[in-house]
Amino acid sequence: MSPALGATQLAGGRTEFLVWAPRAERVEVRLLDARERLVPLSAGERGYHHAVVEGAGSGCRFFYRLDGDKQRPDPTSRFQPEGVHGPSEVVDSMFDWQDSAWRGLPLERFIHYEIHVGAFTPEGTLEAIVPRLDELRELGITAIELMPVAQFPGERNWGYDGVCPFAVQNSYGGPLGLKKLVNACHTRGLAVVLDVVYNHLGPEGNYLADFGPYFTDFYHTPWGPAVNYDRAESDEVRRYFIENALYWVTDFHIDALRLDAVHAIVDPSARPFLEELGAAVHKRAEELQRQIWVIPESDRNDGRLIRTREAGGLGLDAQWSDDFHHALHTLLTGESDGYYADFGKIEHLARAFTDGFVYSGQYSSNRRRRHGNTSRDIPAHRFVVCAQNHDQVGNRMLGERLSQLVSFDGLRLAAGVVLLSPFVPLLFMGEEYGETAPFLYFIHHSDPALVEAVRKGRREEFSRFRWRGEIPDPQDEQTFLRSKLNHELRRNSGHRVLNEFYRELIRLRKQLPSLARLSKADMEVAGFETEKALFVRRWSGSDQAFAVYNFSDSPATLRVPVPSGEWQKLLDSAEERWGGSGSSIPNAISSQGRSSITLGPRSLVLFHAD
Amino acid sequence: MSPALGATQLAGGRTEFLVWAPRAERVEVRLLDARERLVPLSAGERGYHHAVVEGAGSGCRFFYRLDGDKQRPDPTSRFQPEGVHGPSEVVDSMFDWQDSAWRGLPLERFIHYEIHVGAFTPEGTLEAIVPRLDELRELGITAIELMPVAQFPGERNWGYDGVCPFAVQNSYGGPLGLKKLVNACHTRGLAVVLDVVYNHLGPEGNYLADFGPYFTDFYHTPWGPAVNYDRAESDEVRRYFIENALYWVTDFHIDALRLDAVHAIVDPSARPFLEELGAAVHKRAEELQRQIWVIPESDRNDGRLIRTREAGGLGLDAQWSDDFHHALHTLLTGESDGYYADFGKIEHLARAFTDGFVYSGQYSSNRRRRHGNTSRDIPAHRFVVCAQNHDQVGNRMLGERLSQLVSFDGLRLAAGVVLLSPFVPLLFMGEEYGETAPFLYFIHHSDPALVEAVRKGRREEFSRFRWRGEIPDPQDEQTFLRSKLNHELRRNSGHRVLNEFYRELIRLRKQLPSLARLSKADMEVAGFETEKALFVRRWSGSDQAFAVYNFSDSPATLRVPVPSGEWQKLLDSAEERWGGSGSSIPNAISSQGRSSITLGPRSLVLFHAD
Repeated sequence: MSPALGATQLAGGRTEFLVWAPRAERVEVRLLDARERLVPLSAGERGYHHAVVEGAGSGCRFFYRLDGDKQRPDPTSRFQPEGVHGPSEVVDSMFDWQDSAWRGLPLERFIHYEIHVGAFTPEGTLEAIVPRLDELRELGITAIELMPVAQFPGERNWGYDGVCPFAVQNSYGGPLGLKKLVNACHTRGLAVVLDVVYNHLGPEGNYLADFGPYFTDFYHTPWGPAVNYDRAESDEVRRYFIENALYWVTDFHIDALRLDAVHAIVDPSARPFLEELGAAVHKRAEELQRQIWVIPESDRNDGRLIRTREAGGLGLDAQWSDDFHHALHTLLTGESDGYYADFGKIEHLARAFTDGFVYSGQYSSNRRRRHGNTSRDIPAHRFVVCAQNHDQVGNRMLGERLSQLVSFDGLRLAAGVVLLSPFVPLLFMGEEYGETAPFLYFIHHSDPALVEAVRKGRREEFSRFRWRGEIPDPQDEQTFLRSKLNHELRRNSGHRVLNEFYRELIRLRKQLPSLARLSKADMEVAGFETEKALFVRRWSGSDQAFAVYNFSDSPATLRVPVPSGEWQKLLDSAEERWGGSGSSIPNAISSQGRSSITLGPRSLVLFHAD
Repeated sequence: MSPALGATQLAGGRTEFLVWAPRAERVEVRLLDARERLVPLSAGERGYHHAVVEGAGSGCRFFYRLDGDKQRPDPTSRFQPEGVHGPSEVVDSMFDWQDSAWRGLPLERFIHYEIHVGAFTPEGTLEAIVPRLDELRELGITAIELMPVAQFPGERNWGYDGVCPFAVQNSYGGPLGLKKLVNACHTRGLAVVLDVVYNHLGPEGNYLADFGPYFTDFYHTPWGPAVNYDRAESDEVRRYFIENALYWVTDFHIDALRLDAVHAIVDPSARPFLEELGAAVHKRAEELQRQIWVIPESDRNDGRLIRTREAGGLGLDAQWSDDFHHALHTLLTGESDGYYADFGKIEHLARAFTDGFVYSGQYSSNRRRRHGNTSRDIPAHRFVVCAQNHDQVGNRMLGERLSQLVSFDGLRLAAGVVLLSPFVPLLFMGEEYGETAPFLYFIHHSDPALVEAVRKGRREEFSRFRWRGEIPDPQDEQTFLRSKLNHELRRNSGHRVLNEFYRELIRLRKQLPSLARLSKADMEVAGFETEKALFVRRWSGSDQAFAVYNFSDSPATLRVPVPSGEWQKLLDSAEERWGGSGSSIPNAISSQGRSSITLGPRSLVLFHAD
């Protein structure tokens, strides 16, 4: 499979060009250096075109010319300094890495922090994140997760409209910016997760179809023709995306890939693309002697994704658990729109704890069919859970964070459920201090018809709501600017306390063996539907902890099944120090097998014994 | 899930009607008995409509009326006496079964004989098959496999255009005809396999969309919108087809279902329809204390279909092995068109023997991508193999059977490869005596535009051939009549000898433990690419047999790896008694670990030791 796709610098000032363009008979590279040149590539097997060119060093910009006619950026461009429609640039792969000691992290130790590069800082660049890393590390975060950075049209976008999967967004600072950020993370002991999109390309600047059958009309997706993962010539399409994954983990030292919405990858083949992708990344991880993970987002509740290949699974490492989020969100907010209709009871959250998926074959009234299969056998470290993420916040009409939907008590409760769970937690940037800015949907397309289509789509999506105001205009720069974090809030009283509460939760999670070891087996869960409360006990050897969560707006007195022994209270969200209205729970209890505990409204308490 | 879908007779002369029609607010049944009546059904949960009606006994014809407007046959009609557009008829489920001792057959003992009901006899009915059963039993056949019998438009069709999955074709003799045939088979010790089509409905008389979302535009198939197996309300669509499968095995005592082209079932859900279907049939088999099998046809070479559920598979029982056919066919004919381009070497047939699939991840030049996954671990009894079947014969422009393509020597060779293989064999009706009639593609639609579309499709399909004659007209009754078997050929000299040769092969297959026990593990295969020959040794305990197949038009002298011992020749296709030109192979050989054997052109020899 060597040489690599794209423009690769060789020794002696030469550059090698390799492009898959089976739809072109003749491919030339048009080099835009001082002596502008047109160099023919030679056509090889299965539609590849290839040349080694003297003196097209790093910084040299180029287009491909197809059959003497169409001029196009490189499908595997590593940099688009002038945006998606402009020339590609040859990139120097050299970088002064200082992370040679870094071997990655086991999944069990991941505490994700999801970042939108543009909205995280005023500058909106990758490098601008670096000064904030120490703060995150002090919070206890172990991994930042970047929303997609692949080149998208314009200067602002969530990233899911990317069209150059190998190029780091120019307005984010390009490939060098990403390397600097990863290097800074690794030297601080932080892992970096990158969100990659292998289910579609964006609607503007997608020139791949001019090169080859990257897409197929045989299947459809919400975004149009599906990526061609199982029809004729799909081997080369798979190579393209697998090389992309390997490029990030190898050249950028990325520690995990979050795969966007894999349910939109239509691939009923005998050797599923996702299995092949996972195997390739794991093989590379072995070669690099690093821990590298593949974490799909999926809407299917299909345990097959994350079962081992030996057990007939696809062998991916973990997946996002939307069910956990929905079960928690509905208990916190009482919302019942759309997919929230399937949740809202304590039993749902209890099942999220014991099983992983809440829907494992039950009838879903939202989907109007049975949904999912069992995940009870799947280890806890294979589920990523959150109280909010870019989708759950940003896909709301007004982009409200949880901080705008529930009380301060509710925010602490949510944090506790996520961070004391046996799953891999994810925080959405700013949630740790109760950021008040919305996270809105924003784009920056150049085609007015496309902009109008996006606006129309948004209006239709939310037409079921009787909202009398204006839906924020995705194309308006203000919509983007309003979504930026206000980091100074961190220092304001209530926000500071919440931030401290998150820090304490993470500290306890890491410190107590019963919380640090992720296991659904060494766990007891009891739901109190009437009281709207949940009891979760976890243990590791003799180390034991239990938490009780009261979702009700009233105090709840519960008889909880606590093993005999002496229990110390480690955390009580109702205490005044955390901004609560005071707690009546004693600092220690001596249990005789069951204890009565009275929790304040929307509060949690954590006890420990060893 | 009770009561059953459709019109079911209850005690006391009452009939229960149950229909899933979520797209209708109001459903009535219009009974066409003496006092023509319109009886309203009451709407229940999830779109079901239900009524119990007095005195609509067996023979009563009816339509459903939807919202006071459209008049439609029952989607679960059990009989369409006037064809696909006419009324449905209430059917008496009583039948005087005489097969109470019948428990079915293990897959290992199946020797299939595929029958097209219309073309098998001059009468073209199910009952007309009965007088021919003894002949088939004497041949050694253990199971007849019926091409689809579900009601299709007109009086002649392969059966894959069926639109009433629960109704036995009226021109075949309806449900009573099928019961009589199955009863006659079982009392003779013959199993009955039924070909069922769950991937689409035919283009004429398909009224299902008026009742509910049986189809979805979300996916496409070669026949239009896909059956809705995973979108909203798909639970009821699944119920419809699963009840269909259970109807055949329960009410008709069918022993196995052959599922047509399951690769056209688009269903990426967490609980695949095929898994649910298999589980339901297996559960029913347990309840009925009979052996019942589910045997998909699939174009994917995906072992997951037939792996156990414990191993992450879908748990179906066996699948057709097209690769085996193609490997054999290309060696016999030298053809290399279309999918035959991927075959043609001895190594392909050798791999079909050792693995099952020939393509288990290798690049397929026909598909222009890698194809399949490994099947090496899958037991031999999970593969059905043949030298010809309705598709491989009938999808040729001129419908030529192998008898029209290869010499008499080649026909015996083909029979030996299939019947001495460790897989489950299938014969296509008439191949056992070298039937000379073609098996052509035929239809009998009533819509001229549809007829023209089918004709055009056929012309386009075969446009790559430089054929100067006329492509047989699918709608012309002569095309159907030309496809009928000429059973009297059986008694003509050459044909009679071939028939005897098949009988002898089957007799040996059943008699020798080394051949009767299907195992890929207790087998040694050696290919001779230069000589175009294949050696296959099989054993069961001390019982051993080996066969050598020479596909070349020249004699071949081979050094074959025969274990030391005394070997008796049991069958030699080159002998004059079988119509060969004489053989020089001795009747016994004494091997010292390797033996030299000289086979005549296109011949096979079978040796045995115990």
